[in-house]
Amino acid sequence: MAVYTEVTDDALEAFVAEYDIGRVLSCKGIAEGVENSNYLLQTEKGHHILTLYEKRVNPGDLPYFLGLLEHLATNAIPCPTVLHGRDGSALRKLCNRPAAVFSFLEGMSPRRIQPNHCGELGNALALLHIAGADFGMSRENSLSLNNWRPLLVSCGQQIDKVKHGLINLLTTELDFLENSWPKDLPAGICHADLFPDNVFFLCGKLSGLIDFYFACNDFLAYDLAICLNAWCFERDGSFNVSKARQLLNSYRKTRNLEEVELLALPILARGSAVRFLLTRLYDWINHPAGAMVQPKNPLEYIEILSFHQKVSDPGEYGLL
Amino acid sequence: MAVYTEVTDDALEAFVAEYDIGRVLSCKGIAEGVENSNYLLQTEKGHHILTLYEKRVNPGDLPYFLGLLEHLATNAIPCPTVLHGRDGSALRKLCNRPAAVFSFLEGMSPRRIQPNHCGELGNALALLHIAGADFGMSRENSLSLNNWRPLLVSCGQQIDKVKHGLINLLTTELDFLENSWPKDLPAGICHADLFPDNVFFLCGKLSGLIDFYFACNDFLAYDLAICLNAWCFERDGSFNVSKARQLLNSYRKTRNLEEVELLALPILARGSAVRFLLTRLYDWINHPAGAMVQPKNPLEYIEILSFHQKVSDPGEYGLL
Repeated sequence: MAVYTEVTDDALEAFVAEYDIGRVLSCKGIAEGVENSNYLLQTEKGHHILTLYEKRVNPGDLPYFLGLLEHLATNAIPCPTVLHGRDGSALRKLCNRPAAVFSFLEGMSPRRIQPNHCGELGNALALLHIAGADFGMSRENSLSLNNWRPLLVSCGQQIDKVKHGLINLLTTELDFLENSWPKDLPAGICHADLFPDNVFFLCGKLSGLIDFYFACNDFLAYDLAICLNAWCFERDGSFNVSKARQLLNSYRKTRNLEEVELLALPILARGSAVRFLLTRLYDWINHPAGAMVQPKNPLEYIEILSFHQKVSDPGEYGLL
Repeated sequence: MAVYTEVTDDALEAFVAEYDIGRVLSCKGIAEGVENSNYLLQTEKGHHILTLYEKRVNPGDLPYFLGLLEHLATNAIPCPTVLHGRDGSALRKLCNRPAAVFSFLEGMSPRRIQPNHCGELGNALALLHIAGADFGMSRENSLSLNNWRPLLVSCGQQIDKVKHGLINLLTTELDFLENSWPKDLPAGICHADLFPDNVFFLCGKLSGLIDFYFACNDFLAYDLAICLNAWCFERDGSFNVSKARQLLNSYRKTRNLEEVELLALPILARGSAVRFLLTRLYDWINHPAGAMVQPKNPLEYIEILSFHQKVSDPGEYGLL
C-alpha cells in the first residue's frame, strides 16, 4: 500500500483546470500501486486515475513510461492511457511532484488465481511483447543480472537474520547465474512486474494491465518467467502445472517461443526468483519502522527458486 | 489509513449478486475511514461504497448506525444511505465480517479549512441535531466523561514519555471536569467525530457527512465543541476566531443555543480536547510496530486544551 501525498483541494482544482475533463466531483486515495500515490478522480467527464510520482520513480524515466503506455494503447493493449492537458502536456506537477492523469480501467485483480486467468495472461503478455516491438524508446532493466550482486552486498549480514544460511545460498546461486545467463535471446519491451495485482479481469476475461513503472528492455522470455513465478505457485510454495501450462501455451499461440527461449526458461525463472527475493529482502530489512508500506514476505521466493533449481527440462513446466 | 481486508473477487461477486445493482465492474480499497475497510465499488448501476466492519466496531451497534443513516437521509441530511438487498437486509457478511453497501457521496474533504467551510459545517451540524430528534433508537457515548479516567489509567506511565508532566496535567484536568461537567443540557443525536476528514464539500458548499461510527446520544453542544476543536485551530495551535465565529453563529441561526449551552461551551471544549488527547495517546502508545495505521499526533490537543482553560467567557469564541 502506498504512502499518500495529501493533495489539497485547491491545488487539485487548479491542476484539473489544465485538462478538458470538467470540474472535480471527488478524489479518493486508493490502495493501488506500491511506488506512487494513486487517486480515483471523478470529474464531470467521468472517472480517471491521478498518479503522483513519489521518490522511487526516477523523473527522467517518466517520458519513457508515458510514451510506452500511449504506444501500447494505440496498439490495442488494455493499459491506462495518459491524458493530455490543454497545453498538450501529459506530465505536470502537483504538490511538488510529477503528476499525470490516466484513463480508468474496469476490472479487478484476481485474488484466487485460476488456470484460465493464466491463459488470459499468457495471451496478453505475448500481445504486449509484439506491440512493443516498434516502440521507439528504450530503457535498461535496472534490476537485472548486473544489479543483483550489489543488492545482495547492500543487504549485508542482515539477510541471515531473515533466514539462516540465506547469504550462502544466494551467493552460490549468483555465481551460477552470472556464469550461465543467456546472451542472445529475443529481446524487447517487458512489463517486468506483471503480478496479479497489476492485472484486471472482468467476467473471467483480462480487461487491464497496469503499473508499468518497471517496464524496460530485456529478454522477452524473462518477462514470461516473471509471470511463471508470480502466477503459477500456490501459497504453500507448490508449483501448479495446470496454471503454467495455460500461461506458457497460450503465450506460444500468440507469439512463438524459439527453442533457445524454451531451453532458457529454467535459468530465467531462477533469475526472476532471485530478483524478487533480493528486492523483497532489501525492503524487508530497510523499511522504516512505522512506515505505512507493508513489505512483502521474501521467503516464498526461496521455495520458488529451489523448485526451478531442480528443473532439468522445460517440459516440466507443462509445455505441450 | 485503514487496514484492508482483502476481498476475493468470487466472494465479492456472490455478495453483490444479493443486491439489485448489476455486476461488479471494479472495486478499489480507499484511504477513508480509519476504523473500517472501505472500497469504492463500481457496478453496472453506478458507484457505491462497500464497508467491511473491522474489530473496532461493535456489531451490536450496527443496527443503530445503519438505522440512523437511513433516518437522517430521509430527513435530507447529506449522509450515505445503506442499500437493501433483494431479501430486504441492509447488513450481511463478507469475508467473515459484517458488511454493507452505501450510496456514494460526491465532494472532497477540505485540506485547508477556510472560515466559510466552518459556516457550512455549523448549519449542517444544527440540521443533523434537529433531524436526529425523532430518531427512535439511542446509544450511549462510550467515550464520554466516565470513560476518560479509565483510559488515562490504562495508558499508564507511558504518557509521560510522550510529554513530561502530562499525567499530572491530565489528572488535574479530569478532577476539574468530573466535578464541574454539566448535567442538564439539551441532548440528542451527536455525530461525535465530525473532523474535516468526515465532511465533503463541492464548490464551497457542504455536500456530505460521513463516518457515523462514533454517533451516540449526548449533549448537542458537546458535538459543537468537538467541531470547534477540530475545525477552528491552526496547525501551530493558535485559535482562529473567524472560523469559530462562522461555526457558532451559523449553527445558532439554524438551531438556537440556550444560555446554559453557551455558558457550558468552554468546559465542553475542554472535555472534547481531553477525549481526543486521551484516545490519541492510547493509539500512540498501543499501536503495533509496523501497523499500517498511522496514529494521529496527540500533542496538538494539549495546546487546544490549554487555550480553553484560559477562556472565561464564551464570547471569546467569537459569538455575535
